[in-house]
Amino acid sequence: MTRVLPPATPHPAALSEPAGPPGFSALPGWTDDAAARAAARLDRSGFDPGSDPDAVVVARSVDDVTTVLTHAHATGTPVVVRGAGTGLSGGTVAGAGSVVLDLSRLDRIVEVSPADELAVVEPGVITADLDAAAAAHGLRYAPDPASLAISTIGGNIATNAGGLRCAKYGVTRDSVLGLDVVLADGRRISTGRRTVKGVAGYDLTGLFVGSEGTLGVIVGATLRLRPVPVRTATLAAWFDDVEAAAAAAAAITAARLQPAVAELLDTACLEAIAEAGGTTPPGGAFLLVQTDGFGADAEIDAVRAVVEPLARSVEIAADDAAAEELLATRRAGLPALERLGRVLVEDVAVPRSRLAEAVTAIAGIAARSGIRIATMAHAGDGNLHPILVLEAGRELDDHVWAAAGEVFGTALRLGGTLTGEHGVGLLKRRWLRDELGDVSHDLQRELRAVFDPGGVLNPGKAL
Amino acid sequence: MTRVLPPATPHPAALSEPAGPPGFSALPGWTDDAAARAAARLDRSGFDPGSDPDAVVVARSVDDVTTVLTHAHATGTPVVVRGAGTGLSGGTVAGAGSVVLDLSRLDRIVEVSPADELAVVEPGVITADLDAAAAAHGLRYAPDPASLAISTIGGNIATNAGGLRCAKYGVTRDSVLGLDVVLADGRRISTGRRTVKGVAGYDLTGLFVGSEGTLGVIVGATLRLRPVPVRTATLAAWFDDVEAAAAAAAAITAARLQPAVAELLDTACLEAIAEAGGTTPPGGAFLLVQTDGFGADAEIDAVRAVVEPLARSVEIAADDAAAEELLATRRAGLPALERLGRVLVEDVAVPRSRLAEAVTAIAGIAARSGIRIATMAHAGDGNLHPILVLEAGRELDDHVWAAAGEVFGTALRLGGTLTGEHGVGLLKRRWLRDELGDVSHDLQRELRAVFDPGGVLNPGKAL
Repeated sequence: MTRVLPPATPHPAALSEPAGPPGFSALPGWTDDAAARAAARLDRSGFDPGSDPDAVVVARSVDDVTTVLTHAHATGTPVVVRGAGTGLSGGTVAGAGSVVLDLSRLDRIVEVSPADELAVVEPGVITADLDAAAAAHGLRYAPDPASLAISTIGGNIATNAGGLRCAKYGVTRDSVLGLDVVLADGRRISTGRRTVKGVAGYDLTGLFVGSEGTLGVIVGATLRLRPVPVRTATLAAWFDDVEAAAAAAAAITAARLQPAVAELLDTACLEAIAEAGGTTPPGGAFLLVQTDGFGADAEIDAVRAVVEPLARSVEIAADDAAAEELLATRRAGLPALERLGRVLVEDVAVPRSRLAEAVTAIAGIAARSGIRIATMAHAGDGNLHPILVLEAGRELDDHVWAAAGEVFGTALRLGGTLTGEHGVGLLKRRWLRDELGDVSHDLQRELRAVFDPGGVLNPGKAL
Repeated sequence: MTRVLPPATPHPAALSEPAGPPGFSALPGWTDDAAARAAARLDRSGFDPGSDPDAVVVARSVDDVTTVLTHAHATGTPVVVRGAGTGLSGGTVAGAGSVVLDLSRLDRIVEVSPADELAVVEPGVITADLDAAAAAHGLRYAPDPASLAISTIGGNIATNAGGLRCAKYGVTRDSVLGLDVVLADGRRISTGRRTVKGVAGYDLTGLFVGSEGTLGVIVGATLRLRPVPVRTATLAAWFDDVEAAAAAAAAITAARLQPAVAELLDTACLEAIAEAGGTTPPGGAFLLVQTDGFGADAEIDAVRAVVEPLARSVEIAADDAAAEELLATRRAGLPALERLGRVLVEDVAVPRSRLAEAVTAIAGIAARSGIRIATMAHAGDGNLHPILVLEAGRELDDHVWAAAGEVFGTALRLGGTLTGEHGVGLLKRRWLRDELGDVSHDLQRELRAVFDPGGVLNPGKAL
């Protein structure tokens, strides 16, 4: 079996002695300390580039970013931008020959405007911190990736991160009004605006969102905030099997209801929670639904009406404490799986109507490969996280990647995508052309070259 | 005073005799009939290129589009894509030297999928027809530009059209999942997907939306549909002046309410309606608010609570007929103004907090210039339509454009944009660099050149 990943050192260019003014080794935030370099080598993808980056620059200001990029552009030095390093696709992995530009100290919330329902932030702000600052005004930052307590806004934007509430409130893209960006050659631009609407010029904001550090370095963002719903209602349902749970999700859609959250756990997930000592009632699948707004209670009753005939049992939370208990089952999934071994968290999406088919196909891949795969899904938008669990000591070997490849192939066959919200990074480049097609793939490479003719921004990633 | 518009013939290249295979004059849809050419010369912007296009091709298939573009690319012939010709910025205006590619016959609704809540359509579908097809499944196409009964989906996508419901449901971009596009050289690509989420590759879908026919020709679209709300509630309020109405809109935002619709009419609008014989109660400003969903009635009561202290009178519609009566006032605005003379419908947006300032500044421009300007605004998203009314026989002369220029300058000074939902077209190119800045403007020209190196797609427009 051939190895499907790119070679272990994706950055071919060696870092030459800093040369030509302005160099960046004079910056206060520059270091080639071994521990700092080692700490900037990995993200949470499980991919190891096999070596440490040559240096790390912890930016203290936008001027620092400009200095680094100007020098990198002049010398052809690969730059890997890093926030909190919580990415799951290898987008911030950095090996020999590259310099890591760490933006985690650019972490000011510059402004929260309740009148315009927006915030202006630096990229290193932790997502949950922004949400907390907004909450003081009855507002929230809607995108809620599972990593929100540890990931940065800049990383969220770079990957177009999703989360549980996407079903109703959209992904990160839908909350980004404008960006401040340092281009590869050190020039600065602002995209978008402080207004909700605006169509002057091309949508560069959308182009930067999800571009995984390949088109420019985001040094500021104007983000849309939304009202905290006056009321949220929570329902949990247990089913005989995942087909019944998927049918319930489809029935909610068919009833033209619009939950804010619709999370599905399959049998393998529930088994792992049980093994971990959780108190999940026996059952083959679990669905958690939340509705919100002025009509949350009426809408959750409508959800119950369509789910109940398909479920083994249904429960609506009577109060916040009860809701937290129901949410705990959803939250217990990943930790329970992590107890069983090293996990590879995958991230495919399919049209909602193919959800059951996808979960079943993935269970088949698990059975054939002998690899334990548990699936959690954002059912409201067809986004599945098949989680491959490797028993203790097992590495991400060719056999594991072959199974992952089968999962990706399944998503594409069902009219879906390789990645719903984590990004392509290093891990999925191998399959990207299959999804995009040759013409689109080539066109995207040409676009990349407009922004970064020297190829210094995160080379070897995303495309 | 210098003329601020580009010269009257924006397409410099003359159409040579069709040469080189495959030519397009052999296509069944090709014509150089004088009446057909004259009919394809203008849109609704009021801009006249001073001559007719050289030919019109009414595409009967995607292959026709490919043939036209391949030939145009090979011969350097400018191509102006046209749907229903309802654009308000001159984006489809076509003069001598250009060929008009008319997509209005590509008008099939290919699929409506209630399970995936999406539709697949050809670009010539009338927006209201799609909405009607969706309604059969309890769904709707959310974007509702005022032109929806006559404009096409392709045109809506090309301009990233807005509408009344944008405040809650977003603009056209937010309802486009994927596109089928013929590139300038005749190659075809598909962007996006049938899934709600997906981050593989750059967001080309977003780049095409709003690109005004300059990056490729959209021949198919996969569009998101949304549930028809179970209930819509309607409130109308009359105020002493526009400042009070804007304060009420701000109070709704401050109360963290989220209307689906929030429309404001200023004093000049109400005066025009009264002159036209409308039965508007006397008052200086009008605000129409709709809430929707399971909690529509509770939310409209919350709206009333914050609006009432600022208003002269407030009315909540008791039933659909009463709601229609309240909506009639909003709908009466433009027809009443059109009775008074030729209108130039402008389209700026400002941050919501600057709405009152913008309306007041525009009234000042009207007073100084002596030109009657009435403003209707989508108050929920800060999008203003100042409507310049020219008395009978008056042309769009330099004095009028100077006043329009002052309106644009006001929007930019308040942190807003030249165009919220109509596009740049020909009319706003003069001011675009002021909004985008030189670096961004140049970058966008480079992007355009990647898609259209020969400059045949709608040259002289949009950028």
